[in-house]
Amino acid sequence: MKALEEYIVKYGQIKSKDILKVDNFLNQLVDIKMLREMAKEWYLHFKDKGVTKVLTIEASGIALATLTASLFDVPVLFAKKGLSSNMSSNLYQAKVFSFTHNNMNNIFVDKNYLLKNDKVLIIDDFLANGQAVMGLLDLCYQAKAKVVGIGIAIEKGFQKAGDMLRSKGYDLKSLAIIEEMDPVNKIIKFKG
Amino acid sequence: MKALEEYIVKYGQIKSKDILKVDNFLNQLVDIKMLREMAKEWYLHFKDKGVTKVLTIEASGIALATLTASLFDVPVLFAKKGLSSNMSSNLYQAKVFSFTHNNMNNIFVDKNYLLKNDKVLIIDDFLANGQAVMGLLDLCYQAKAKVVGIGIAIEKGFQKAGDMLRSKGYDLKSLAIIEEMDPVNKIIKFKG
Repeated sequence: MKALEEYIVKYGQIKSKDILKVDNFLNQLVDIKMLREMAKEWYLHFKDKGVTKVLTIEASGIALATLTASLFDVPVLFAKKGLSSNMSSNLYQAKVFSFTHNNMNNIFVDKNYLLKNDKVLIIDDFLANGQAVMGLLDLCYQAKAKVVGIGIAIEKGFQKAGDMLRSKGYDLKSLAIIEEMDPVNKIIKFKG
Repeated sequence: MKALEEYIVKYGQIKSKDILKVDNFLNQLVDIKMLREMAKEWYLHFKDKGVTKVLTIEASGIALATLTASLFDVPVLFAKKGLSSNMSSNLYQAKVFSFTHNNMNNIFVDKNYLLKNDKVLIIDDFLANGQAVMGLLDLCYQAKAKVVGIGIAIEKGFQKAGDMLRSKGYDLKSLAIIEEMDPVNKIIKFKG
């Protein structure tokens, strides 16, 4: 997606050859026009897949997933990173390692909200090592729900999780795929 | 908002006289049609206030805030509940006690994202004791940003934070105000 690549070049901050900071338009301060365009791209790509639910993981995927679900006119479901006193104990649970926070999280969804007839579109902001997506796939597997697609804003192509998911047959639509980042010369190379 | 009150009666679970669980349409599995209607209500109420930014706190306010920001066509900003290795150190910080999780959190926004010329609309899912909103007001105060409105999905009218905010002159638009909940007979009484 050309417009997103241009935003990444213009606003993204390359913190190292692995880390790109985009919290000035995607992760903390969110450019709503860009987000709508991104959601539209996923809608056009997945619209014939019979999506019944959009699934993401709190917190940074929620904005993207919500706008996407609104185009599909289906519910959006958030996997939770922690348990709270209000939550049911009837939960699917999966493990996700966060490289950003350097810790292992359990993620949860209520078993009543992810069903075996669901056709799930997974949406998230980043795909790097694939931990978050693998956790969400695990939740869908436990629920016997079908994953009909995975929409990612920014894939770090050099970290191989994208290739692994494609080789397993998942319909993965990443809106920008970064091949290489050079933190010294501030150059980002995209795939294609 | 009649439709929201009907949803609360139909889907909400009264866990005690203080605690209402709505994660089957608002907090975990999100009914996108209802959410769009809620965003529209806030838009109609605040559209002449010159809103430049919608501010919320991760994670459960994000979906509501994003759809609302999309109607205003302005950026949405998420106050973060924790620090991550990617974040700047140039932050406004406020304290928020969570009764749900029974702990004190620091919330943060990057100083570059909340500006003194901003006219801020605060959006959140619940207003009970007012801790989250007070934290967000504190961030705006530090940034010298003007708070032009506060949009809340469900106000627990019996917990008085709403009255306190109104008495201070804030334009608070709660879409449903609960006066009383009876966990035994499963009755919810709304204001008005």
